[in-house]
Amino acid sequence: MEFTHFDGRGRARMVDVSGKGDTVRTAVARGYVFMKPETLSMIKEGRIKKGDVLAVAQVAGIMAAKKTPEIIPMCHNITLAGVDMDFRIIDDRNAVAVEARVKCTGKTGVEMEALTAVSAACLTIYDMCKAVDRDMVIKNIQLIEKSGGTSGDFRREEEVPWEK
Amino acid sequence: MEFTHFDGRGRARMVDVSGKGDTVRTAVARGYVFMKPETLSMIKEGRIKKGDVLAVAQVAGIMAAKKTPEIIPMCHNITLAGVDMDFRIIDDRNAVAVEARVKCTGKTGVEMEALTAVSAACLTIYDMCKAVDRDMVIKNIQLIEKSGGTSGDFRREEEVPWEK
Amino acid sequence: MEFTHFDGRGRARMVDVSGKGDTVRTAVARGYVFMKPETLSMIKEGRIKKGDVLAVAQVAGIMAAKKTPEIIPMCHNITLAGVDMDFRIIDDRNAVAVEARVKCTGKTGVEMEALTAVSAACLTIYDMCKAVDRDMVIKNIQLIEKSGGTSGDFRREEEVPWEK
Amino acid sequence: MEFTHFDGRGRARMVDVSGKGDTVRTAVARGYVFMKPETLSMIKEGRIKKGDVLAVAQVAGIMAAKKTPEIIPMCHNITLAGVDMDFRIIDDRNAVAVEARVKCTGKTGVEMEALTAVSAACLTIYDMCKAVDRDMVIKNIQLIEKSGGTSGDFRREEEVPWEK
Amino acid sequence: MEFTHFDGRGRARMVDVSGKGDTVRTAVARGYVFMKPETLSMIKEGRIKKGDVLAVAQVAGIMAAKKTPEIIPMCHNITLAGVDMDFRIIDDRNAVAVEARVKCTGKTGVEMEALTAVSAACLTIYDMCKAVDRDMVIKNIQLIEKSGGTSGDFRREEEVPWEK
Amino acid sequence: MEFTHFDGRGRARMVDVSGKGDTVRTAVARGYVFMKPETLSMIKEGRIKKGDVLAVAQVAGIMAAKKTPEIIPMCHNITLAGVDMDFRIIDDRNAVAVEARVKCTGKTGVEMEALTAVSAACLTIYDMCKAVDRDMVIKNIQLIEKSGGTSGDFRREEEVPWEK
Repeated sequence: MEFTHFDGRGRARMVDVSGKGDTVRTAVARGYVFMKPETLSMIKEGRIKKGDVLAVAQVAGIMAAKKTPEIIPMCHNITLAGVDMDFRIIDDRNAVAVEARVKCTGKTGVEMEALTAVSAACLTIYDMCKAVDRDMVIKNIQLIEKSGGTSGDFRREEEVPWEK
Repeated sequence: MEFTHFDGRGRARMVDVSGKGDTVRTAVARGYVFMKPETLSMIKEGRIKKGDVLAVAQVAGIMAAKKTPEIIPMCHNITLAGVDMDFRIIDDRNAVAVEARVKCTGKTGVEMEALTAVSAACLTIYDMCKAVDRDMVIKNIQLIEKSGGTSGDFRREEEVPWEK
Repeated sequence: MEFTHFDGRGRARMVDVSGKGDTVRTAVARGYVFMKPETLSMIKEGRIKKGDVLAVAQVAGIMAAKKTPEIIPMCHNITLAGVDMDFRIIDDRNAVAVEARVKCTGKTGVEMEALTAVSAACLTIYDMCKAVDRDMVIKNIQLIEKSGGTSGDFRREEEVPWEK
Repeated sequence: MEFTHFDGRGRARMVDVSGKGDTVRTAVARGYVFMKPETLSMIKEGRIKKGDVLAVAQVAGIMAAKKTPEIIPMCHNITLAGVDMDFRIIDDRNAVAVEARVKCTGKTGVEMEALTAVSAACLTIYDMCKAVDRDMVIKNIQLIEKSGGTSGDFRREEEVPWEK
Repeated sequence: MEFTHFDGRGRARMVDVSGKGDTVRTAVARGYVFMKPETLSMIKEGRIKKGDVLAVAQVAGIMAAKKTPEIIPMCHNITLAGVDMDFRIIDDRNAVAVEARVKCTGKTGVEMEALTAVSAACLTIYDMCKAVDRDMVIKNIQLIEKSGGTSGDFRREEEVPWEK
Repeated sequence: MEFTHFDGRGRARMVDVSGKGDTVRTAVARGYVFMKPETLSMIKEGRIKKGDVLAVAQVAGIMAAKKTPEIIPMCHNITLAGVDMDFRIIDDRNAVAVEARVKCTGKTGVEMEALTAVSAACLTIYDMCKAVDRDMVIKNIQLIEKSGGTSGDFRREEEVPWEK
């Protein structure tokens, strides 16, 4: 098995996908931001007051999905067909769960777009709350599933438990 | 205590820092990518062959630090004085540890730049190895320390252990 | 009728267009910059001297069309097939009219690209003349027509008169 | 009086401001989006449901302020000290009023950043509602006031009435 | 023969390619950085120590290929299928040769992407070595060959000798 | 002498300049585009008709100067105080000479900004004329002089003759 991002001499390259077909591809990624209980409460209250940390994180995630090829050097620049972000408050763990679903019709998968969207949303949550909680930790950013493409579908067998 | 990114009515804003002084500020952030033992071996061999996953991740992290205000909506756009990335192979845990140190002379801290650099480097490692290991997980992205500015210095009391 | 940019729970998303076909789509947008008579005279003379405010605005409009998905959060990133800018001096109204025509072969329309190109060109005119006229006003940025796509063609029934 | 963006031979340039002092500068700009009454109602309901058109427009405006030098060719790239967006529903005119306040400590004013933020927010409102109302018109984007810098303060004598 | 980037009245535009077919297109470009012998030695040693000037230049070239439509105003924004960079040390001429191969499936060629990748890699070499050698010169950036598209294939008859 | 972009272990970094003072810094760079006589004639005629290749290249150069830290990985992101582009037609050599002058008040020099502006302008000339002349060659991009900063002033002893 070879890293496809390296050519014969070991140099980085953007892999040639011109021989691949245009198929519908999807990817789902998840991640978590752990924080103090007070911070989570403030996010929840903020949402009620419409000073919505998660509304900003949602926009950040969607915009970051489009910016993926500028952030990840060997990633192909592709046109995305759709991006969906979802947030869940996990009260008993003092965490916010972040999920991104990305879709495209193209020659390469959208795993990196989904993972980048989750990362950007988590970073945005950190940024907006850091004045009250610098100890927050971003955890377990992972690909949950992907479909489409010649490498076949992927479904993570066991999600890395968010409590870890 | 208030979220400073929200004004009185709860709307997001980029906080006014014009009253703050220009001081030297630093931030250190860390994160980890967990993977299969075979994947870690390939990274290590790749480095030897100069098809260096970490060399690409290093460039990705530094460039992402500069791109932080484009990724995080309420983050100030500032001029950075220096960015340093460091990687450590943690063999017995099958992980790569990523660290970013960012410095500026300005009116706001560089925590987000350091965290964004770490995130981008972790995502790049994922991207470059995903053909052989889609189960990799990015874990425990966290601020380790910051200095400078009126909010005082910060030093994480206990680093979230990388094995978690 | 529903805002398609919001999912069931009212969260913003980039709408899934993967089921749509690739068709040729066009859009035409217009806008106006009103100014003092002296400012308009200077633009006209500048053009003659080749210190051409409108030449810079033209480049600005075309580059902004390509940058649309970075400016408008829920806008799909697409590949454009062509962009044309046009300017008319309206002497008796002390205005410059700006028009953009954008074309693509894809799954979504190019209305936003045309409107963004017009906005950027108007802002550039403002920027280049503001040292002599801060009272300029950008007016009536509007979609004139679009074609292609399942939502059908659109042709504005009555252009908002530029004198308003 | 000369266009300062053109040198002696009439070529565009980014004006040398290295001789200017670093002072606090502010700018306020406004603009309007006119729409059908039903569209305005949907925005208002959407806000209540937290599918908030204006929340997305707010983020768009702030991010666009930072992107101003990429959109407007001769505009200096500066570090912003703060950006605030504000929206008002004008029911009896079927319009949304958009206001941006931008602040910096630097050698050039922030008029263009304020005007660009307003433009991007107006375009975003258009984008998010265009599925139900392609006839919307963006009107009267204008500088309301600026302070700081050698060219003196500016205060628009009479705001261009939003009903026009 | 007409410059296709200008419309009838001599205004710049992004040429309409919507009538063109999607075909596989490739382009190869080359360029050279000339330097002092000591500088070349340091690059070679640096490569051995893994402080690899060319590894950074390689990433820079690939990322710049994707950024081409942001750098060259009338260039279409397209999705690239692959980018490959190659470097050769030319000891007896104290030069580094840089080559980029770009591929896409689309309606326009990728000459500009290949030339931009070469330019960015050359500039990066300059940047990383300029502390020891400000006299470096970037020379003979040229298209070597292209294939695909209606304008036919191109193969430079005689490469501009790198010693010039 | 050491490459300052590499730390002790040979890893790329963005060098810490926080200890440097803010001084006025300038840089001048030059480059050349060689072409067929017919191509040069068309540029000259185009300019007369106001379909001005050089006007677009001028805007491209200025915008690229601002984009330098996105193109060159280890380059600091700084605020520029001014950018000036100049073009000369060299009839007897069938060339266009491109010059950029960049100025800033900051902690790092602006050599890379000047060289990047020249490169982007040359690439833009190539792009706009390539339909009639794919044999054009970009030559001798070089730093002519710089001033300001602790490394002292630089003045190229002998410009690399443009005929080479």
